[in-house]
Amino acid sequence: MEKGTYNAITDVANVQIGHVTLYEKLNAEDTICTGVTAILPHHQNIFENKVPAASFVLNGFGKTVGLIQVEELGVIESPIMLTNTFSVGAVLEGTLSYMLAENPCIGDSTSSLNIVVGECNDSYLNSMRLLAVRPEHAWSAIKNAKSGAVEQGAIGAGKGMICYGVKGGIGTSSRIATHENTKYTVGVLTLTNFGRRHELKIKNWEKDTLNKPDGSIIIVVATDAPVSDRQLKRLAKRAAIGLGRTATHVHNGSGDIIIAFTNGYTISHESNEMTEDITLLRDSHPMMNQLFEATIEATEEAIYQSLYHAETTVGRKGRIVEAFRRLE
Amino acid sequence: MEKGTYNAITDVANVQIGHVTLYEKLNAEDTICTGVTAILPHHQNIFENKVPAASFVLNGFGKTVGLIQVEELGVIESPIMLTNTFSVGAVLEGTLSYMLAENPCIGDSTSSLNIVVGECNDSYLNSMRLLAVRPEHAWSAIKNAKSGAVEQGAIGAGKGMICYGVKGGIGTSSRIATHENTKYTVGVLTLTNFGRRHELKIKNWEKDTLNKPDGSIIIVVATDAPVSDRQLKRLAKRAAIGLGRTATHVHNGSGDIIIAFTNGYTISHESNEMTEDITLLRDSHPMMNQLFEATIEATEEAIYQSLYHAETTVGRKGRIVEAFRRLE
Amino acid sequence: MEKGTYNAITDVANVQIGHVTLYEKLNAEDTICTGVTAILPHHQNIFENKVPAASFVLNGFGKTVGLIQVEELGVIESPIMLTNTFSVGAVLEGTLSYMLAENPCIGDSTSSLNIVVGECNDSYLNSMRLLAVRPEHAWSAIKNAKSGAVEQGAIGAGKGMICYGVKGGIGTSSRIATHENTKYTVGVLTLTNFGRRHELKIKNWEKDTLNKPDGSIIIVVATDAPVSDRQLKRLAKRAAIGLGRTATHVHNGSGDIIIAFTNGYTISHESNEMTEDITLLRDSHPMMNQLFEATIEATEEAIYQSLYHAETTVGRKGRIVEAFRRLE
Amino acid sequence: MEKGTYNAITDVANVQIGHVTLYEKLNAEDTICTGVTAILPHHQNIFENKVPAASFVLNGFGKTVGLIQVEELGVIESPIMLTNTFSVGAVLEGTLSYMLAENPCIGDSTSSLNIVVGECNDSYLNSMRLLAVRPEHAWSAIKNAKSGAVEQGAIGAGKGMICYGVKGGIGTSSRIATHENTKYTVGVLTLTNFGRRHELKIKNWEKDTLNKPDGSIIIVVATDAPVSDRQLKRLAKRAAIGLGRTATHVHNGSGDIIIAFTNGYTISHESNEMTEDITLLRDSHPMMNQLFEATIEATEEAIYQSLYHAETTVGRKGRIVEAFRRLE
Repeated sequence: MEKGTYNAITDVANVQIGHVTLYEKLNAEDTICTGVTAILPHHQNIFENKVPAASFVLNGFGKTVGLIQVEELGVIESPIMLTNTFSVGAVLEGTLSYMLAENPCIGDSTSSLNIVVGECNDSYLNSMRLLAVRPEHAWSAIKNAKSGAVEQGAIGAGKGMICYGVKGGIGTSSRIATHENTKYTVGVLTLTNFGRRHELKIKNWEKDTLNKPDGSIIIVVATDAPVSDRQLKRLAKRAAIGLGRTATHVHNGSGDIIIAFTNGYTISHESNEMTEDITLLRDSHPMMNQLFEATIEATEEAIYQSLYHAETTVGRKGRIVEAFRRLE
Repeated sequence: MEKGTYNAITDVANVQIGHVTLYEKLNAEDTICTGVTAILPHHQNIFENKVPAASFVLNGFGKTVGLIQVEELGVIESPIMLTNTFSVGAVLEGTLSYMLAENPCIGDSTSSLNIVVGECNDSYLNSMRLLAVRPEHAWSAIKNAKSGAVEQGAIGAGKGMICYGVKGGIGTSSRIATHENTKYTVGVLTLTNFGRRHELKIKNWEKDTLNKPDGSIIIVVATDAPVSDRQLKRLAKRAAIGLGRTATHVHNGSGDIIIAFTNGYTISHESNEMTEDITLLRDSHPMMNQLFEATIEATEEAIYQSLYHAETTVGRKGRIVEAFRRLE
Repeated sequence: MEKGTYNAITDVANVQIGHVTLYEKLNAEDTICTGVTAILPHHQNIFENKVPAASFVLNGFGKTVGLIQVEELGVIESPIMLTNTFSVGAVLEGTLSYMLAENPCIGDSTSSLNIVVGECNDSYLNSMRLLAVRPEHAWSAIKNAKSGAVEQGAIGAGKGMICYGVKGGIGTSSRIATHENTKYTVGVLTLTNFGRRHELKIKNWEKDTLNKPDGSIIIVVATDAPVSDRQLKRLAKRAAIGLGRTATHVHNGSGDIIIAFTNGYTISHESNEMTEDITLLRDSHPMMNQLFEATIEATEEAIYQSLYHAETTVGRKGRIVEAFRRLE
Repeated sequence: MEKGTYNAITDVANVQIGHVTLYEKLNAEDTICTGVTAILPHHQNIFENKVPAASFVLNGFGKTVGLIQVEELGVIESPIMLTNTFSVGAVLEGTLSYMLAENPCIGDSTSSLNIVVGECNDSYLNSMRLLAVRPEHAWSAIKNAKSGAVEQGAIGAGKGMICYGVKGGIGTSSRIATHENTKYTVGVLTLTNFGRRHELKIKNWEKDTLNKPDGSIIIVVATDAPVSDRQLKRLAKRAAIGLGRTATHVHNGSGDIIIAFTNGYTISHESNEMTEDITLLRDSHPMMNQLFEATIEATEEAIYQSLYHAETTVGRKGRIVEAFRRLE
């Protein structure tokens, strides 16, 4: 299928990505090698203009927060944040304080706020017990968010991640679903930290095995197609199929979680109306299968992109995780 | 991974498979081209000795019955039956009457009975509106069940099925999960009726396109490993990954449903005891990942086996669906 | 809250209810004491004009069929049928043949069909093992369907049911959700077959205990409000709360299943359009809480109505289940 | 049913409850009126000895964290923490740092950690935007945990909560499930912050209406019965029925979430064995229904206990929420 301009999640118009990377060798034992990545569903106030959303948990050995309310109400109302496992609390608080500053009404006159934070465990390279990510890093990641080309690999939340035994991290890709004159874009961003080297079926690949615990993957699927929360769950399940194509056995200890949203329309927080007029894609229209195929292809490629872009990285205890390119 | 003796679901000791195939040209318009397949989890009375079970719905455009109670109680208490979409009612009634004959207590003194029937739509080849499958065919399929090598391809419930644009149907495979001296078997049987020809990534393959609506797949995963209903759901999700590897986009109109059971232990219907002593695999033990890998591999191969074994078949309106082998 | 004209599910405009009751003493041992009830979501062709729908399983010791596809696609495309546990197959086939007659395209050119059948176990009074309900009874129940007042109690699928140790069966009720000048109706129909006498908290009630196995309840919630499948699941959960108010402990052996639909708008089977324009209630609008309250109240009263209307009934083996009124 | 010694969740042997309450008037506008409550499933290291667990979401307008992994693995491995909506991040980090101190292996050699934090919105009384709860308060709540009588009402996480228009907060109750000589205890602790005054059906009650947004309730169910994660989900659903009995309509904006665990047996983090020997209650044994009834009764009473114990409380902007007792 055709790709978008940047072959990135930002090919879905108005989606923005921001990274904060923390990398510092503290001593022979400890290195901070981690970060935060923010996915902004659109340019406007996200709380005031919520995006329809859904999730699918392929394997729930994970600590992602915020999905209960997404399931109930079918919307996301804040940036989607990615970080390491032990920094979910700090990123949750930082994103909250950012949103409180932007929206004085939240927690005062009426509303609460649901925040989505996904995570993977980067403790092989990162001194994760030191809790280096602070709330302000979440704030910075949001502020850094921009459209256009996305920095990939060992950056942001991906700084310390390992995928198929080599350096992983952030990867992204996009596909254009087309029917006659209508085009919708599906963009995927992945935080890859899963898999073992022997699983990946690439020539000359099985050289070495890193003795590393099971990891995880967070997959964020964005589209501008007019789909409902129910239909977004269908897309999320296809992202799991895309993941499966890269060869993982979806290990016991892997938190494999998919979050999908559309910014093709939004749901306003306040309204004088009792109802909302919405235009939705018919499930039986061929465009739906196009979106499924786009999601699978973009997910598979986003994972490979994370491998292609990530550089050899030295982490705590002097551990080295080599780049995929080195091995070729 | 190592395969079992028969490379079949029957490599899980005591599992039995029975087929009834209906094939008759009635006139220029109508051909009966369908059947029933029965999967018996073990040789004994299944109602008295229930097997732990779970399911996963990858895409729910399907009419499988019986999964609500499997989800609640975590057991299957009858043969698992496969047939065409419009014959679910007849097969349900036939399996019921078989079980009533075997178990005089059901529906008299106390109990009800939950039956699992999966289906795919064979209406391209089969005059499905004629409802040719009758309750007694379910009874016969159960009676025909046997251990050992499994007849595959255009047989039983698979008689009229189409997969990736060529003849599909019944396929099976098995893998041995090994850790030190312990071995558990995972066997998979699939009823394949999904996919479009252009999706399948096999050389010299994309010759032709059958203009056929979306189909479905039922995947039955059997094991003798000591796993709980919760863990069986984990296996069921891995079967979805195995399916994904064969290239399908999991179309809108596809009912892609996985049912997993273990016969490594059973739950008795009656007991004088308040409790049951059970030995369960630890989720964190490496054997669990072995079972995941076994499930993925056996599912993928079972699907291909359905293609390899199915013969070119002529159905209603003189329609011909060619065997995969013809195209090579 | 205000009730509708008939205090019945038929207060939701265009909903129709049809019963077929089978009652015949065969000999000292056996009595046929059962039936079928059909709920038609509207007057038109239901397959061509599908109704948005959802379900919630409070306790899954039940054999209801059709909910997998309802969950995936968010619509119901056939009459909702109720019967006894062992007649699900026959009613499924009868409803199918009715729909095939009405819709020549199904199973020929393209489509399959999903049918929803709910059940309770009436084997205390009914010789359920005799499978007295045949496919044509489903057809008749659909043909009998009409608007207006609903016959309740020991009728249709409710003929042999027992609730809180006295005669139960069919009960219905409705409530009007109101906000300023807008009114929506919520109607509930229940098939009651659950509970033990000591649970029900009514004065002078605890006279006697019938030694009967756990039963079940099927609750059908209808509305004309413009709600999505996701929102209908929210209504379905409130029906569970209404059930809980009548005092049941939701026993192990009870299949407590709720199906909710709206006929406030429909989804056409065929369309030349890629998209559908839909108007949906905002979750945050006070009308949503009105609908929740209406669902709870109507469910609770529908259950009591089944008790108030059901007459003392003599079933197999000369068993007598007394009417609730007798005991007062 | 019979109650335990303290009519509290601590009647389940080894369960401990700890509170930290923050209450300070800062100025005419702002008052800190909030806290943290910790539920320790047993006296030992919880990470090393995980407790089987499950959850049920009745209405998902809530921000509880940790339930994805509970669903996948069926265990809880940390204290269960309760606090206000905006303090989930701080309590997550504080509980993490407590657990890291207790378990040097977590995040170093191999493991990650899943923490469960539930929340309700106390922003009517508490200046929630000030984020007064800090990570060390979580630590203190855990350290404060003790067996025996539980302090209830406007304390810990309950300090600023409102229930049915009067002061709510922490409430607890217990019931003994009995069959012949075997007894199991079910204890429930609730954080109540839901409902509107007119809903509660108590005489002379409907005096006044507080104009307050929808609230929430977190219900923690503890037992010592030998039940599996699947069976604990069944208990969790019964707690929803107990909640429904108190009269709420389960409003749109209410996060009504139930977490259930047993400490009747534990799952060790490390083991040399491949399998675990477990003794589980049979679903069909009458004790199961006893546990269901115990859960419903204890939940209903725990909610009322929160009302009975909570004192009139003055919060931010001089707002007063009266005690239930004042109104009688």
